[in-house]
Amino acid sequence: MKDKIKIGYVGCGRRGYGVLKHCFSQMCDVDIVALCDVNPANMEKAKDIIVEHGKPVPPMMTTNYQDVLDHPEIDAVVLMTGWDERPKMAKQALLAGKYTAVEVGCAVSLDDCYDLIDTYEKTGVPLMMLENCCYSRREMMTLNMREKGLFGEIVHCTGAYAHYLNKVELFKEMHEDPEKKEINHYRLNHYINNCRENYPTHALGPVSKILNLNRGNRMVSLVSVASKAAGLKQYAKDNFGEDCKYANIDYKQGDIVNTIITCADGATILLTLDTTIPRPYYSRNYGVRGTKGLYTEERKVGWIEGMEEIEEVKSNEAEFFEKYDHPLHVEYESLHEKRGGHGGLDWLVCRAFVESVKNGTNTPIDAYDTVLWMAIGALSEESIKTGRSVEVPDFTRGKWEHREPPVLGKYCLDKVCEDKSTPLFPELA
Amino acid sequence: MKDKIKIGYVGCGRRGYGVLKHCFSQMCDVDIVALCDVNPANMEKAKDIIVEHGKPVPPMMTTNYQDVLDHPEIDAVVLMTGWDERPKMAKQALLAGKYTAVEVGCAVSLDDCYDLIDTYEKTGVPLMMLENCCYSRREMMTLNMREKGLFGEIVHCTGAYAHYLNKVELFKEMHEDPEKKEINHYRLNHYINNCRENYPTHALGPVSKILNLNRGNRMVSLVSVASKAAGLKQYAKDNFGEDCKYANIDYKQGDIVNTIITCADGATILLTLDTTIPRPYYSRNYGVRGTKGLYTEERKVGWIEGMEEIEEVKSNEAEFFEKYDHPLHVEYESLHEKRGGHGGLDWLVCRAFVESVKNGTNTPIDAYDTVLWMAIGALSEESIKTGRSVEVPDFTRGKWEHREPPVLGKYCLDKVCEDKSTPLFPELA
Repeated sequence: MKDKIKIGYVGCGRRGYGVLKHCFSQMCDVDIVALCDVNPANMEKAKDIIVEHGKPVPPMMTTNYQDVLDHPEIDAVVLMTGWDERPKMAKQALLAGKYTAVEVGCAVSLDDCYDLIDTYEKTGVPLMMLENCCYSRREMMTLNMREKGLFGEIVHCTGAYAHYLNKVELFKEMHEDPEKKEINHYRLNHYINNCRENYPTHALGPVSKILNLNRGNRMVSLVSVASKAAGLKQYAKDNFGEDCKYANIDYKQGDIVNTIITCADGATILLTLDTTIPRPYYSRNYGVRGTKGLYTEERKVGWIEGMEEIEEVKSNEAEFFEKYDHPLHVEYESLHEKRGGHGGLDWLVCRAFVESVKNGTNTPIDAYDTVLWMAIGALSEESIKTGRSVEVPDFTRGKWEHREPPVLGKYCLDKVCEDKSTPLFPELA
Repeated sequence: MKDKIKIGYVGCGRRGYGVLKHCFSQMCDVDIVALCDVNPANMEKAKDIIVEHGKPVPPMMTTNYQDVLDHPEIDAVVLMTGWDERPKMAKQALLAGKYTAVEVGCAVSLDDCYDLIDTYEKTGVPLMMLENCCYSRREMMTLNMREKGLFGEIVHCTGAYAHYLNKVELFKEMHEDPEKKEINHYRLNHYINNCRENYPTHALGPVSKILNLNRGNRMVSLVSVASKAAGLKQYAKDNFGEDCKYANIDYKQGDIVNTIITCADGATILLTLDTTIPRPYYSRNYGVRGTKGLYTEERKVGWIEGMEEIEEVKSNEAEFFEKYDHPLHVEYESLHEKRGGHGGLDWLVCRAFVESVKNGTNTPIDAYDTVLWMAIGALSEESIKTGRSVEVPDFTRGKWEHREPPVLGKYCLDKVCEDKSTPLFPELA
């Protein structure tokens, strides 16, 4: 086991900077030996936050990703670049023998997914999507409830990316700079040119763990249906005038995309993409339904067979946390000095990656999970275009039937390890 | 216009009795001149409640439906029989020239639907499904909000039949009589033998009105996916022992069925059937999403572009009722003596039918609506079996494009008429 690991940090834009600030730059067992971004200004900002947290200036700061891969001492790369580049960059990182973490997102094409999983199988180098919602307190509580049998047999799960992005993401630049007439943002370009479930992983990550996907169960088929695209045009018209470029585009991306996935054990998953028409951001509609009980984030309610009817719109989640909180979150909640963005999710998922690198083990979200979740975008696009359900490839090539849940230390999602050798916040030890 | 109408009431079982008791037997402009049921004991009970409300004993009480159709003075028949018989019985009633009301439910086959609409077109006799949720306060409020433009362009609607039926309906007889080993209930038989969206209309009724289906818009295609069937078996095992008949049946009906419908204008509808695994009955998941605002029953929340984020699980519905209550419900809520089951829904939908018969007009839920909603069961079954989306027939044969919302008096769903000639509760006048 390594006491310290060396990472190359690639992509220092908004999200990359945030995760660096709240997570990696605060870990005493992580040396950031390289920064990489096509925009040198982003790297400067990233360097400053690293220094602010008492770490040395990264000896390598480069706009050339290959420099990072060629660095002989780097143990792992963290890829926080845009959606489209990640699969190919991850492949290169695996070929270079580096543990690879990728931010959430979909691959552009299925070919990218096959290419990535082939590379993983050839190299054996671990690959992990940093799907922070897998480490959410609520979602982990449901894992714990499942272990206790409270859901009975699980029949159906739901999840959504229900985040109204028009102001906070897609048209942000025009709100910030009223002179601006044109935006160059890869996400907005996707909304203009493609129609698909483009952000499935916040929902699919936790659901995959609940349903043991790739470990005794797998996705078999998928069907996606998109509504018309009316939200972005209306928003641009209302906010920037009817003559502005964005009020005169026929966006391809439907406002609401529903996707239903059928699993080998007969359980189904309903995913919803909901990002371009008005809504409050109060839920990702995470839900677990079984023959004995349910949990639903939409109402923040748990309900077990035999409980009384619920009339009022009122959460009973506090009682459920009291009884069924996941041990990892019990520990997290007990700490005075909590770290990481989004209520600890980012910290915990990044720690899971770092622990795996230190221990030389596979990652709790592994290459099969990562590639499967990446593939949903292209599969849903195909289903929407053809109006029919599509088969979901088995990237494990049959191994899913006999794969055991991994025991990977305390950050493992599937089992809580007894190993207390590594504290949750190593810099506090 | 008739001052009084004569009806034949067919099907006096649980639901038939309830609607008779709370609605038709309390209307001073309705004479119940015939009762019909295969079970004479049901008719006796029905007769008693009619007499209790000060009406005469119905001169005809028959087990033979044909007697009712042959009765020369009957203006209308109300069909409260089981799911399967209704389409054929409705056809016979139209052929006999009687206004026909049918309780909610699906047809067994598409042929039944074509047959019924052909009969309607041939006879011109009005046919109305008594879909009470069309008259729910909440759903009617959203119609009013739509009229005011609060949703902008409507993009997506949702609805569910989310009612856990195991104890209260499907296995009720065995709970009531512990000696009972076998149940003869047509609904349970459907769960044993078929897999489909078997109860779509509580959701589809109000959604159809919001989306102007059959009146400028129409359903184009539908895809349904069913989860495994695990709930009924588990329930029977837990409640009646693992040796009981019902713990040893391989039920065909999946526990959760999701159906996505695409409309001609590009709007989509998500329907969910959710009746056999544990849940509280707090919502039918009715929801309307547009480019400017939303309403969601699941949280009992309305939200219009520009409102503040909502953090707490807390309904703001009271404020919305205050501002946007439908005029029909404003009047209903203002009455001291409210009538009808389910918070007035049953009363209002039955009044809408009676008013149409009295006025000799078409019904606000008309034959095209009724047959379309009846067809969803068979269409979803086909989609589940084939794993592909299916076309939804246009029962209007092209007329949908130019049909105007009808103006049918104050019970019309589409417009509130200025006509105040008929009081909401005629027996109070």
